Amino acid sequence: MLDSAKPIGVFDSGVGGLTVVRALMERLPHENIVYFGDTARVPYGVKSRNTIEEFTAQIVDFLLQNEVKALVIACNTIAAVAGKRVQQMAGNMPVLSVIEAGAQAALRTTQNNHIGVIATSTTVNSNAYARAIHAHNAATRILSQATPLLVPLVEEGWLDNEITRLTVREYLKPILADNIDTLILGCTHFPLLKPLIKQEAPNIELVDSSITTAEATAQSLAAANLLNTSGQSPDYRFYVSDIPLRFQTIGERFLGRSLEQIEMMRLG
Amino acid sequence: MLDSAKPIGVFDSGVGGLTVVRALMERLPHENIVYFGDTARVPYGVKSRNTIEEFTAQIVDFLLQNEVKALVIACNTIAAVAGKRVQQMAGNMPVLSVIEAGAQAALRTTQNNHIGVIATSTTVNSNAYARAIHAHNAATRILSQATPLLVPLVEEGWLDNEITRLTVREYLKPILADNIDTLILGCTHFPLLKPLIKQEAPNIELVDSSITTAEATAQSLAAANLLNTSGQSPDYRFYVSDIPLRFQTIGERFLGRSLEQIEMMRLG
Repeated sequence: MLDSAKPIGVFDSGVGGLTVVRALMERLPHENIVYFGDTARVPYGVKSRNTIEEFTAQIVDFLLQNEVKALVIACNTIAAVAGKRVQQMAGNMPVLSVIEAGAQAALRTTQNNHIGVIATSTTVNSNAYARAIHAHNAATRILSQATPLLVPLVEEGWLDNEITRLTVREYLKPILADNIDTLILGCTHFPLLKPLIKQEAPNIELVDSSITTAEATAQSLAAANLLNTSGQSPDYRFYVSDIPLRFQTIGERFLGRSLEQIEMMRLG
Repeated sequence: MLDSAKPIGVFDSGVGGLTVVRALMERLPHENIVYFGDTARVPYGVKSRNTIEEFTAQIVDFLLQNEVKALVIACNTIAAVAGKRVQQMAGNMPVLSVIEAGAQAALRTTQNNHIGVIATSTTVNSNAYARAIHAHNAATRILSQATPLLVPLVEEGWLDNEITRLTVREYLKPILADNIDTLILGCTHFPLLKPLIKQEAPNIELVDSSITTAEATAQSLAAANLLNTSGQSPDYRFYVSDIPLRFQTIGERFLGRSLEQIEMMRLG
């Protein structure tokens, strides 16, 4: 098989990364995709660095065995904590990360150089967005807020709900007070809350890392001459380490279309 | 070592089971305790039955290697889904379960035979409380409500907070409408919400399964002549499969005292 016809490997601790798959399907409709979601051990955002690195290495091993041509880290926590490890394992293969893509998009968006980030505790504590942004512009001010309740609220499906609104308001209060003009949605669950967040922060530009990551993937594949030109209709495969109750429903909410060809694959 | 001097093995998917340990320490101050919390794979309440059974068997193996004299399932999800598996592995050893203890306490408490249960989705879907209660009294009416957001709210430490109050109110609405007089707190995280739940449901008796499980453990050990009479000060050991950020803080909130002698132990 030509390298360009090989699939893109996309992975996440659970189902959230399906928002990135959705954006990839729209931006790169000819690409084959293999997805891995570690639903048996989700969420990663509350675990230690060592544990996240170990679990991540197992996922990358699995995707490399599936002969992917590029890796997309569709989980902010993994990108924040184990991004380097993924790079090492990938060798010369393109590695895209929601954090790097989100950081660059935020820098292009901000006008006053005050950028907010909402993410899991582990992502915030890793300081990864600040490092990625400061590598390009050291003068940018970053305001980060850990928002651990937003993931379960999204998974509960309370996307347009008073409790979710109050929770978002509570979390945004300190960073809005600091005059940000751009807010990075630093978790793949959060794009589903965009309408509500826009109402609560009407003058702030939101950076949806699923869209920016799909765009960065398109550019990277083009630069490496790896865009799929086979002309065949694309193949999508979804592997998860567990298929719990309501998985299909929740997964389809993220993917925005019906979720087929799901296979269970235990790692570790 | 005399069997009676051996430790009680207590286990949970994470830190919530420490509320049961706390109740055991108070009710049985002479007992040695070994605790296992599967913090690398928490939460179980969103995973499939097969996965929960597999993870549970690994925990029980570990505790049996530690020569425990009794097993206390300090996790409603595990008790609901894998209780039988634990029984099989335990042989003749006493096995106590938050569900059996909670069911019996609720039956002693209710006067109108309308019992409510709040728990994780997996516990509710397993129907385990209804089965345990109906085994004693088939005429009891059980109203169950899955309350997946309460675990992350407790772990966020929002114990006395307007958002938590609204969430509790939303979840309790349908079961309060059904005229229950007794509510089982069907998750080891929920005892920390007792003050708030009492305010939202002032006329309802709350069944705190940590206390009822400690009481059932005391009776079971006495009946089996296994109460520790060595007279030595008790030994407490805490094993977890991951030690994430803020673990100590969150753990101590559940245990109600300082958490020492924590060791990390990866399973599977």
